[in-house]
Amino acid sequence: MHLRPGYVEFAWGHPDLHLLPLEHLRHAAVRALADHGHDALSYGAAQGPGRLIEQICARLEQVDGQAARLDQILITAGVSHALDLICAIHTCPGNIALVESPVYHFALRILRDRGLELLPIPTDQDGLRLDMLAQTLAQLRRANRLARLLYTVPTFSNPTGITLGAQRRSRLAEIAAEHDLLVVEDDVYRELWFDTPPPPSMIMYDQAHVVRLGSFSKILAPGLRLGWMMAAPALISRAAGSGVLTSGGGLSHFQAHVVAEYMRLGLLDAHVVDLRAAYKARRDTLVAALLKCLPAGCHFTAPEGGFFIWVRLPEGIDAAALLARAEEARVAYVPGAHFHVDGGGQRELRLAFSLLPPQEMVEGARRLGHVIGAAS
Amino acid sequence: MHLRPGYVEFAWGHPDLHLLPLEHLRHAAVRALADHGHDALSYGAAQGPGRLIEQICARLEQVDGQAARLDQILITAGVSHALDLICAIHTCPGNIALVESPVYHFALRILRDRGLELLPIPTDQDGLRLDMLAQTLAQLRRANRLARLLYTVPTFSNPTGITLGAQRRSRLAEIAAEHDLLVVEDDVYRELWFDTPPPPSMIMYDQAHVVRLGSFSKILAPGLRLGWMMAAPALISRAAGSGVLTSGGGLSHFQAHVVAEYMRLGLLDAHVVDLRAAYKARRDTLVAALLKCLPAGCHFTAPEGGFFIWVRLPEGIDAAALLARAEEARVAYVPGAHFHVDGGGQRELRLAFSLLPPQEMVEGARRLGHVIGAAS
Repeated sequence: MHLRPGYVEFAWGHPDLHLLPLEHLRHAAVRALADHGHDALSYGAAQGPGRLIEQICARLEQVDGQAARLDQILITAGVSHALDLICAIHTCPGNIALVESPVYHFALRILRDRGLELLPIPTDQDGLRLDMLAQTLAQLRRANRLARLLYTVPTFSNPTGITLGAQRRSRLAEIAAEHDLLVVEDDVYRELWFDTPPPPSMIMYDQAHVVRLGSFSKILAPGLRLGWMMAAPALISRAAGSGVLTSGGGLSHFQAHVVAEYMRLGLLDAHVVDLRAAYKARRDTLVAALLKCLPAGCHFTAPEGGFFIWVRLPEGIDAAALLARAEEARVAYVPGAHFHVDGGGQRELRLAFSLLPPQEMVEGARRLGHVIGAAS
Repeated sequence: MHLRPGYVEFAWGHPDLHLLPLEHLRHAAVRALADHGHDALSYGAAQGPGRLIEQICARLEQVDGQAARLDQILITAGVSHALDLICAIHTCPGNIALVESPVYHFALRILRDRGLELLPIPTDQDGLRLDMLAQTLAQLRRANRLARLLYTVPTFSNPTGITLGAQRRSRLAEIAAEHDLLVVEDDVYRELWFDTPPPPSMIMYDQAHVVRLGSFSKILAPGLRLGWMMAAPALISRAAGSGVLTSGGGLSHFQAHVVAEYMRLGLLDAHVVDLRAAYKARRDTLVAALLKCLPAGCHFTAPEGGFFIWVRLPEGIDAAALLARAEEARVAYVPGAHFHVDGGGQRELRLAFSLLPPQEMVEGARRLGHVIGAAS
């Protein structure tokens, strides 16, 4: 990440450095090495250290109202690694992967690296369109083809901020079961809700057809490269049996011990509460600034959690073409087309409110409003 | 790793826990978080933190007599991850990978997970047989087929302990260039030489056709899951451009900062010198005990570095079948067939001297000698 001086960089969906609990993580690292340093520095289990898996199961009991079992969790080097691992054990090159559209752009690259054919399923203001999903699956079935998985970010979506409601989740689970479709749920923003907790994870609707991907990148520190997947024990066991994990053990062994200690010390609860307040304030600031500064014809919805606001531009304005002018005015964003596989999203753009201090966002909204206004 | 009480576990090629520099790593972790904690906890570059890349380049100048360039190094989550990453960017399922035989068994699983067809190239007492390599490549060429890579552990091999001499290295480089074959050199034992340094890395013979895989697992701590690859800048850049690394940054970002600090403090040099002395003493102990205890008809060669001794059993004894009886006598090893793709190695077995204290190895050699003697 290169932050250009004088620019308002709405493009980076990174947490603010000042929100990293540096001192507490240092304390946890020292404790982890003092109390079980040999474990932390040795080869570990392919599934990940039991210490962290136990902490995650306990935390999921708080989050979900129902504990995950130990054999449902595998520690990963973050969601990107987890997604790649699922492709490794569940797909072959040439298979079809359905992707919510728009969706996290780098996930598309991970799926493409595995040689998958990507078919977009459109979303509306309430998230994934299940009529379109059912229609696509029916078409595939008629053509005697199979979709191996659906990748979706149903909770505080990256990039749209939208959350799929309980009713659609329930219907998605039905469709997945009917078509034996694996739903890969990127669930990294769940804990960062601002007003009320979001609907349950997809895995609460169907334990057999959902892999839920969690991460400490948003709620603790991205540099730890630490996450987890929750899935049916058979799938967890296949992932743990992959060559890379069998050879060296879990990829994030050392930092898993540090985070297990951080959680054991009870530090995560208070930190997440602080983050919710901090990000909520940022969302409020950016929403207020956009309401004030964006010209008529722009639309956006205030997200109820996560890091992002998705803006729709007035008709006739292309977000990718506008970026050059925005950068001249020293404000940056990610054009919507980046999050589509089929060339959609031209009139849309993603703003992140996770990284920037409030005053900077206010100035950024002013510049953006000016640039859009000039192009209208 | 489960160490069964009362057993002598020669099967595990792990470092002795007492050789882990726990205190110094704790110190480095504290310093890394104090001095550049925000960097260590943020998303990092896909290539890995510049701090560690610089330290590795400087160290390679000591090891090789020639510094690596910064654009030749990418930080990995160890050699297993690196090997998988090379497959991702350089192979497609169905491609042919040549593998030295016998060779590190879990590497075979990583290559198979990528859907590669494995063709073994035999070794003799001096390592890879280049006549057989040339012959296989010529046969493939006649059949209009291509081998995409050769995986080899030419220095203090796992499992044989054998080191490929300078002359064969030079010839291997010629063959690789002639057939445009990528040589993937697993170079993790290089620094653990006991008497004199080994011949130069394969990459010193040909920078275009060699990827060299290094690791901190053997010289520092396996739990860090930290390694590096050295290759032509174009290949490094392709690896860094993979979806997984682009999405989240390098997989071992946090521990890379810790190890960069450890190296900056100058702690690695003295530690590696200590390890050489410790492993040399263990090798000497096990070699002396095997000479004393193994019955006539057994053969082995004292390795000049690394972790392993490769034992050939008397004619008519199958190492896999013998293992049950060895375990009854409470001594364990890995049967040679595990390291072959084609069912070879029945009369061979691998002993690791890295993990066990000297007295335990003496007792293990006694038990093993007894079991082999009883089967002869």
